[in-house]
Amino acid sequence: MQIKQITLARTPQGTPSEADFEFGDATLPAPAGGQALVRVLALSLDPYLRSAMAGRHLSAAIRPGEVVRGEGLVQVLASQHPRLAPGTTWVAACGWRSHALLDADAIEQARPVGPELQPATLALGVLGMPGLTAWAGFKRLADAKAGDTLVVSAASGPVGATVGQLARLAGCRVIGIAGGPEKCAWVTGQAGFDACIDYHAEDLRQALRRLAPQGVAVYFDNVGGDVLLAVCEQLAVGARIVLCGLMAQYNGAAPVPLNPGLIIRARATVRGLVVYDHWADFAEMTAEIGAHIRAGRLQFREDISHGLASTPSAFARLMNGRNQGKALVVL
Amino acid sequence: MQIKQITLARTPQGTPSEADFEFGDATLPAPAGGQALVRVLALSLDPYLRSAMAGRHLSAAIRPGEVVRGEGLVQVLASQHPRLAPGTTWVAACGWRSHALLDADAIEQARPVGPELQPATLALGVLGMPGLTAWAGFKRLADAKAGDTLVVSAASGPVGATVGQLARLAGCRVIGIAGGPEKCAWVTGQAGFDACIDYHAEDLRQALRRLAPQGVAVYFDNVGGDVLLAVCEQLAVGARIVLCGLMAQYNGAAPVPLNPGLIIRARATVRGLVVYDHWADFAEMTAEIGAHIRAGRLQFREDISHGLASTPSAFARLMNGRNQGKALVVL
Repeated sequence: MQIKQITLARTPQGTPSEADFEFGDATLPAPAGGQALVRVLALSLDPYLRSAMAGRHLSAAIRPGEVVRGEGLVQVLASQHPRLAPGTTWVAACGWRSHALLDADAIEQARPVGPELQPATLALGVLGMPGLTAWAGFKRLADAKAGDTLVVSAASGPVGATVGQLARLAGCRVIGIAGGPEKCAWVTGQAGFDACIDYHAEDLRQALRRLAPQGVAVYFDNVGGDVLLAVCEQLAVGARIVLCGLMAQYNGAAPVPLNPGLIIRARATVRGLVVYDHWADFAEMTAEIGAHIRAGRLQFREDISHGLASTPSAFARLMNGRNQGKALVVL
Repeated sequence: MQIKQITLARTPQGTPSEADFEFGDATLPAPAGGQALVRVLALSLDPYLRSAMAGRHLSAAIRPGEVVRGEGLVQVLASQHPRLAPGTTWVAACGWRSHALLDADAIEQARPVGPELQPATLALGVLGMPGLTAWAGFKRLADAKAGDTLVVSAASGPVGATVGQLARLAGCRVIGIAGGPEKCAWVTGQAGFDACIDYHAEDLRQALRRLAPQGVAVYFDNVGGDVLLAVCEQLAVGARIVLCGLMAQYNGAAPVPLNPGLIIRARATVRGLVVYDHWADFAEMTAEIGAHIRAGRLQFREDISHGLASTPSAFARLMNGRNQGKALVVL
């Protein structure tokens, strides 16, 4: 069948732009044994893809000429694999396409999405990989206790907002860091954080000293760069840092020194998080976060673009930090 | 009484030199109530003093005009404090002096040195603060298991050599990093490490790939700087890093980026060590390391200069990395 797809035209330099991508046509054959043909309902846009485009991510590189990788919400049109019944909905590695032919590997890694989940796009956000990232980082690595002051960057994104809300539910005092008044207003208003620092408008170091005068007990870092360094300067003794993402570096900026002297001074524990290590916890995460969502205790926010052709500009917006919530493209 | 002492003449720029210090005379009164007069038998030279001279250390700054701080092995000449009987030997914060008047605070923090300990200078080295640093870092923070590949920098120093030997006794495979063939020969010959990389002569990254092809499970860092970065590039998944010292920065060099991406990639745990936090473990440490020394299972090495006047040049040698083992001045 004739489909639409988006390939990487060239390796982005700096922040990606629409010109780095090419929208075009392709032909898919009917599924062979072990394969399934799916229609893509929605695509998940995630910062790690930028890193993969530069060949710097743990996952495979995305090279010029290749269809851009990525997860999406898909509906099965035709299947030669026992796991995927026609009509059912899944999260799968479909790539930036209108339709995809999933092979057995992709099918085995796909996750079912039941009708009880509304909106279904939650399976790409707080009940998907970003949710698992937040949940595993908070539950398995952060060692946060009630009363701790927890700081999280990229606080209005699906990982940051979920970390902060899980921390609030666990009795922590939660300070977000985000860029711009609109994001900060959502973080303190809807997501219920105790405070949110707009690092575009305020001096981050001054704000941290004011808001965390006793020091930061837990820092959940989604950005790296100077934000990481600034929080390290305000750590409490015995602090824990979860290194989860490097937004500040994904567009190609040089790493900022994480000063080992600050780690020593705080007797801090720094842990690196890779969400793939925690895949076995998916069911536990979805049960817990799902219950919070149904009870109205955990808020989420989706930044939805419409139509496959809007994907490159939506991705550029995400990598510029101009998205408001989980970046999605609904086809 | 008339005594000799060494003051800081000026804040060192870069590596300290003899001209940064002034040798001179002073007069001490007889001890008042709660004080004791001691003769200094030996001084401990430690890299953290350089950091204190720059005002960058957790302990108080050492300023121009002040007698240089530091621990020494002292013998009590006259005492107005019940804890310090005349004739007994202690480790105390005496400073760079021939004799010192200890106040009640210094006396309460002094550690007794019994006649069973030979040589008594061990109380400044592997049975003193460097020994506790090594022991606490290895036992409390490194989480090392038999079979782990452990790398330690400044491997011929009292901390590094002790960490490596404790690790060997615990069944680890131990790789040292040191500067120069003489240090490396001692590390593999006397201290029994499995290997030692001479970073003056070899490409450190190549050597680490060759000697730790499966990755470094534990890195005990005494130096910071590019050595830390190089080891981070060769971490095994799940690695632990103990940040213990910053020799590469003490002379004033800028911090080298500790790339957060490498910590994430290895899902590493990085912990900062401050020896003062582990003071309560002194007795356990001395019992364990003392038993190893008596049984010939743990080697140590002392770099002894003679006479108080030699202290500045010995300290400059230490900060140039030209010492061979624990740097001491015997008066």
